Amino acid sequence: MAGKVDRAASPRRRSAAAAQSQAGRQKEKEQSPSPRRTSAAKPQAKSFATQPDGRAIPPESPSRPLELLSLLVFMLAAIFAALSYKHGARSQHVTSHLILLAAVSVAVFFATMRVIPVCVSYHMRKNLVGRDINKKGTQGGEGSVPEAIGLAPGIVLVSGALVYQTLMLTLRTDTTPYDEAWHMEFNAGVVSVLFMVLLGFVDDVLDIPWRAKIVLPVFSALPLLASYRHGTDVVVPPPLRAYVPEVPGISVDGILYLGPIYKFYMVLVVVFCSNSINILAGCNGVEAGQSFVIGVGALVLNLLNVCSDDKNTAANHMLSASMLAPFLAATYALLMHNWYPSRVFVGDTYTYLAGMCLGAAGVLGHFSETMLIFFAPQVFNFIYSVPQLLKIVPCPRHRLPTFDTKTGLLTATPNYNLINLLLHIFGPCTEKDLTIRVLVVQVLSIAFGFGVRRALYELGWVL
Amino acid sequence: MAGKVDRAASPRRRSAAAAQSQAGRQKEKEQSPSPRRTSAAKPQAKSFATQPDGRAIPPESPSRPLELLSLLVFMLAAIFAALSYKHGARSQHVTSHLILLAAVSVAVFFATMRVIPVCVSYHMRKNLVGRDINKKGTQGGEGSVPEAIGLAPGIVLVSGALVYQTLMLTLRTDTTPYDEAWHMEFNAGVVSVLFMVLLGFVDDVLDIPWRAKIVLPVFSALPLLASYRHGTDVVVPPPLRAYVPEVPGISVDGILYLGPIYKFYMVLVVVFCSNSINILAGCNGVEAGQSFVIGVGALVLNLLNVCSDDKNTAANHMLSASMLAPFLAATYALLMHNWYPSRVFVGDTYTYLAGMCLGAAGVLGHFSETMLIFFAPQVFNFIYSVPQLLKIVPCPRHRLPTFDTKTGLLTATPNYNLINLLLHIFGPCTEKDLTIRVLVVQVLSIAFGFGVRRALYELGWVL
Repeated sequence: MAGKVDRAASPRRRSAAAAQSQAGRQKEKEQSPSPRRTSAAKPQAKSFATQPDGRAIPPESPSRPLELLSLLVFMLAAIFAALSYKHGARSQHVTSHLILLAAVSVAVFFATMRVIPVCVSYHMRKNLVGRDINKKGTQGGEGSVPEAIGLAPGIVLVSGALVYQTLMLTLRTDTTPYDEAWHMEFNAGVVSVLFMVLLGFVDDVLDIPWRAKIVLPVFSALPLLASYRHGTDVVVPPPLRAYVPEVPGISVDGILYLGPIYKFYMVLVVVFCSNSINILAGCNGVEAGQSFVIGVGALVLNLLNVCSDDKNTAANHMLSASMLAPFLAATYALLMHNWYPSRVFVGDTYTYLAGMCLGAAGVLGHFSETMLIFFAPQVFNFIYSVPQLLKIVPCPRHRLPTFDTKTGLLTATPNYNLINLLLHIFGPCTEKDLTIRVLVVQVLSIAFGFGVRRALYELGWVL
Repeated sequence: MAGKVDRAASPRRRSAAAAQSQAGRQKEKEQSPSPRRTSAAKPQAKSFATQPDGRAIPPESPSRPLELLSLLVFMLAAIFAALSYKHGARSQHVTSHLILLAAVSVAVFFATMRVIPVCVSYHMRKNLVGRDINKKGTQGGEGSVPEAIGLAPGIVLVSGALVYQTLMLTLRTDTTPYDEAWHMEFNAGVVSVLFMVLLGFVDDVLDIPWRAKIVLPVFSALPLLASYRHGTDVVVPPPLRAYVPEVPGISVDGILYLGPIYKFYMVLVVVFCSNSINILAGCNGVEAGQSFVIGVGALVLNLLNVCSDDKNTAANHMLSASMLAPFLAATYALLMHNWYPSRVFVGDTYTYLAGMCLGAAGVLGHFSETMLIFFAPQVFNFIYSVPQLLKIVPCPRHRLPTFDTKTGLLTATPNYNLINLLLHIFGPCTEKDLTIRVLVVQVLSIAFGFGVRRALYELGWVL
């Protein structure tokens, strides 16, 4: 995303990537001896490694087998963590479904790895590309990097989720705890994610107006709300009850009957999540990285609860896990191409789909409050950015750090976002280290979220 | 679609539209005095009427009020036809749901009318355009026509369907006959259509390979199959039973227990439908026109059955109607811009979504056999095209008729498709008349479909 990042700051201006892409087209015309011959050539998969873009990174990095192994270990560990944690009455179904889910997720990972190079060659051919602004002045900042590659994980993970659902329904017996209502919610989640993939890709291609970016996620949140079968009542924690007045029909005996207010809150959560990943962006791997960390945190929470004694809680967390596992597998494959130095940019396609997938998992899994704590860096980044977004403070075209070609380090610019704040507090660093700093903050937020849950549980409150 | 029509014949060659779009980009660069100024200009809605494209058609044609009136009359007529036909036990729910559906559909129509000009300006800005090949040599063939405008009806109809579902679920009571399983199937239909909108738009932008066009509809058909809750058994009509051998487990007492074979058949139906509208294309208004006629036929069939005594039949036809009514409203709005002479092209975005919407309605409404009869012109066109598609007979880049600039008439070329066949049999005609000829054939197929149903009903057979 570095190429066209942070358009929040300047929605009316043409993005740098678009302008450069036009230059790229012009260049392509000059380079090709005959347009007909160029157009007739079939795009080659993996041709991006041989593109004259000044990058010498092979498509398969040396550490690939190690990373593959870590993925498989992660998947297996997740299954066994869940199974060894609790053996409830439904554990047999949970076991078989988790094994199925793990198998589909591994398939999603390999499929995404295969589809990304295909997407790259098609996007390069149509000049859907950007430039790496944080490497300006070096060899890495010269070439064009394919944009909107989030399309590959998007299509693959939705296909994977649908295959998983088909297998679930084919194999189900009368005792399976996941009924039609469960699948209705699952389909609602798929609709939401798919809508965001479409919206994101349209945005990458057409640069849609900002009002559409706020309005369309509301529509895509509708199936989540419509399918939301459970209570919208909130139990007020005992120490706070003294401060909550009794209102007939709304606040009775320490229970808030929120109804439409709660649904409105859910819409806000979904709209916020789907846009928030897009705002905390700007260095290689940070969009996919933060999404991966949040997703792992949420999946661990799911796996701790899929064997819950409460039937609804168990089913809800299974639903959330069913969305998150393929998402994490696809994201991991994307990260292997998007990690510093990026060979692909994820595009709005990925940031919207990731935000929506995490938000929908939080809503459908009934832990949207915890999810918001996991999203603490994004919430902070959004609030911190508001003065510039509202133009109270001058807002330049890009709010990225400055790259020093001599030292190879990024230094803070006086812009109000988390990335510059981290550079300001901890000093200049390389782009890779900056991404790692953001991910460390993200991991701390996840840990804090689990801590809050534990503390509230100890106190006997509900979260 | 005329600009990039019939790529079936030449999947490996660059489409004319793509080549022209590159020329268009070049042109844009030359015309604009300063790229910055051009890019900073906010696209104006309805600016396409003032584009220097040699067309002088105002965005609002004089007959618009009449057409609006006809839409409203059509909607109301459909409701009352259904209500006066039968008054079953569930008629109260049916009435309220049909009124809700009609209201949402009218809103979808007006929203699509508003969104199309916005899409047009964005697509023009990014040179997502084609040329009108059937008008080559005249003023109308000179300018660029915005492509892929099917995106507007696609996004609006999906949003409309989701609003409709939300209202349904908000207003439902304990006696509402549409349960979670119904909504699971509804969501499955939305997933399928949305997947096709995404696939179509990606194809319009990137020209995806043919294998993807076959494989991806299979994935998008999965939720339909997974949600398909009803029998896959087929009752063999009595006169044919003598010819069907008894096979234990598969064919017993005149009933075929098809199971997976029937599901495979459904996948074929969906994949065929989603591609077939795309193949029968090539003159202004023919893609949206044929889809509209088929959709009206299917909706009439639904409305005759929403009060059926059989509870499942009634619910299935309501499900199909819930998808078709917003689809028809959006298609009607698109037709008002796409009818001869086209101010917009519908793009693969529309042809895929239309094919999938009709196919999914047939599968979810449990009348896929009737739907295939409605698709008779598309089936014929596909079979008739096979010799050229398989390159048994030489296949030129485009299989369109020849346009005579002197007479203004289209004449047949020796290509194997329905459009040329109609010109060959009935002689040269204008492009508008050619579209009308195709639509007449389509109407006859619908009438034939109803005739077959009636005949089988009289004979006591099941369809």
